[in-house]
Amino acid sequence: MTKKKVSTGTHVLGTIQTKQIKKLQSLSQVKKHISKAIKQNGFHELGSFYYQFPGGKGFTGVICLSESHVAIHTWPELGLLTLDVYICNYSKDNSKGCKKVFEEIAKFFEPEKIKVKIIKR
Amino acid sequence: MTKKKVSTGTHVLGTIQTKQIKKLQSLSQVKKHISKAIKQNGFHELGSFYYQFPGGKGFTGVICLSESHVAIHTWPELGLLTLDVYICNYSKDNSKGCKKVFEEIAKFFEPEKIKVKIIKR
Repeated sequence: MTKKKVSTGTHVLGTIQTKQIKKLQSLSQVKKHISKAIKQNGFHELGSFYYQFPGGKGFTGVICLSESHVAIHTWPELGLLTLDVYICNYSKDNSKGCKKVFEEIAKFFEPEKIKVKIIKR
Repeated sequence: MTKKKVSTGTHVLGTIQTKQIKKLQSLSQVKKHISKAIKQNGFHELGSFYYQFPGGKGFTGVICLSESHVAIHTWPELGLLTLDVYICNYSKDNSKGCKKVFEEIAKFFEPEKIKVKIIKR
């Protein structure tokens, strides 16, 4: 009998710098973009919660997937956002898809610089 | 003029092993416990989304805070859960509070073993 190898997946943690301050301030456009990136890579959004801070202070959001989660927090005053994409390996190795979802969401913000940590969980 | 130091906070990523399989299967009790841990450490829950998988397959949840997020995903069949607590440093250094929230949520599951990574973001 072989014991099932325990791996709970891949987590990409990023800090993204951008000059697109308006994109960091308003969540109206990005929600659709995030949902599309998740769906196009074969993952499943179960639900989400987003919050728009008042007075141009940015937004924050958490998206719950069958395959774990995505989280986004923006700081327009610093010209940056943090982005987490954690995709589990429940049925198969999803590490490539995890990185693709991260890249596709990041692209929306026209990054000047991206700092990334990739963690096997 | 001194430039504001950019630090977006502390993120604790944990994998917790437990024999409390029933606690991994049902989210009814843990929701209140998570909300309490957040509030008691001075942080603010804006909203959340939880999902109970059918047939005892565990649950998944994302909790959106003014100070970033908490995320939890359980695998009863493996006897484990992953827990993320990411607390930003918007107004002050919240690294101690971040670790406390993690510990208080973890305690609920009566851990046999905890594997933790702490990342400064």
